[in-house]
Amino acid sequence: MVDLVSQRLPEKMSADRALLDELLASTVLAHVGLVVEGSAVVFPTGFAVVENAVVIHGSTGSRWMRALAGQEVSVTVTKVDGVIVARTTFESSMLYRSAMLFGTFEAVPADAKAAVLEAMSDRIIPGRSGEVRPSSRKELAATTVLALPIERWSLRVSDGWPEDEPEDMAGDAWAGRVRFGSPDATLEPSPDLRQGIPVPSSVEALLAQPGRVA
Amino acid sequence: MVDLVSQRLPEKMSADRALLDELLASTVLAHVGLVVEGSAVVFPTGFAVVENAVVIHGSTGSRWMRALAGQEVSVTVTKVDGVIVARTTFESSMLYRSAMLFGTFEAVPADAKAAVLEAMSDRIIPGRSGEVRPSSRKELAATTVLALPIERWSLRVSDGWPEDEPEDMAGDAWAGRVRFGSPDATLEPSPDLRQGIPVPSSVEALLAQPGRVA
Repeated sequence: MVDLVSQRLPEKMSADRALLDELLASTVLAHVGLVVEGSAVVFPTGFAVVENAVVIHGSTGSRWMRALAGQEVSVTVTKVDGVIVARTTFESSMLYRSAMLFGTFEAVPADAKAAVLEAMSDRIIPGRSGEVRPSSRKELAATTVLALPIERWSLRVSDGWPEDEPEDMAGDAWAGRVRFGSPDATLEPSPDLRQGIPVPSSVEALLAQPGRVA
Repeated sequence: MVDLVSQRLPEKMSADRALLDELLASTVLAHVGLVVEGSAVVFPTGFAVVENAVVIHGSTGSRWMRALAGQEVSVTVTKVDGVIVARTTFESSMLYRSAMLFGTFEAVPADAKAAVLEAMSDRIIPGRSGEVRPSSRKELAATTVLALPIERWSLRVSDGWPEDEPEDMAGDAWAGRVRFGSPDATLEPSPDLRQGIPVPSSVEALLAQPGRVA
């Protein structure tokens, strides 16, 4: 499995843990792959890194969460950074980073759930847990938190420049990269928000740096 | 399998084909899930919709491409649109759209490859195929193009507002959404680009609307 992942384009592979950490800090979206009735199903989920593990959460009633239990799965995290525009369509490609982690999710114990959920929340909306009431016992009991240790993974990084043939470089075609930045973000107060409640600093922080999240 | 996908949060499910098409037009990144040696592996790839099929491409030497042949797979496309900021962390969540398509990729015949590859290229860099030379026979022969008909799929759209409990709504916490827009994009001419070659209109178009791609 890992061999299949690493076989192609070996120049794009890297075992650099720092690059992995940078990728995992650049988005909160992961795609979890698992086998259900013989087929590979993939579900998107928010994640955070807490104490060297990828953590995810969901309702205790979620069939996804229950299907994961004890099963070897993969977790794929991908960030599209831009486009490599070569002098031919054949040599053009995406600028991207992608990691696939392998392992088994384990349930986070009840007494650790609150802290992990706060960390997940603050990963998406920085500082939010300090602005609102703590989760209730009922809310915590209704939430499954799962952790997959970051131990086995492969990483692919495409960050090169166009590599055109000499005859194409002699021509007049443009070549370069378009690099995507942080997305612009806009604020939409709830229709039911009471007058006079100011925008909190956690939301200001998310507005200012949405690229940390997606 | 589809039952597992649709079981949870039924209010977020939708069978609306128009919403699916809108999602598939909002990103070029897909995650293909397949079973390899009993495990679910997931690989990210660029895609385009051509004639009611999801098309992908790769090197004829790619083990990914060969592993796909004749296998039932899933193709997941996810777009994070923002964050729902509720008055509690428990009720906060992501604004997102996600579709999972099911089926089997079939090879696009040799005589149709050039047109499909041009469509894929123009999907990412609008108009690029008209600015550069056509792909050579050698380049086309080195490329596998696969198509999966859009027939079986499930769609989940999260686009609501915070749904807080009355006691939380009575408090002073802010609530609303942060909606992500098109990412800013920057231009990086190749280090080896000759002086005097202007930025083509295809690249200007990508720069102006990078949110179409990622």
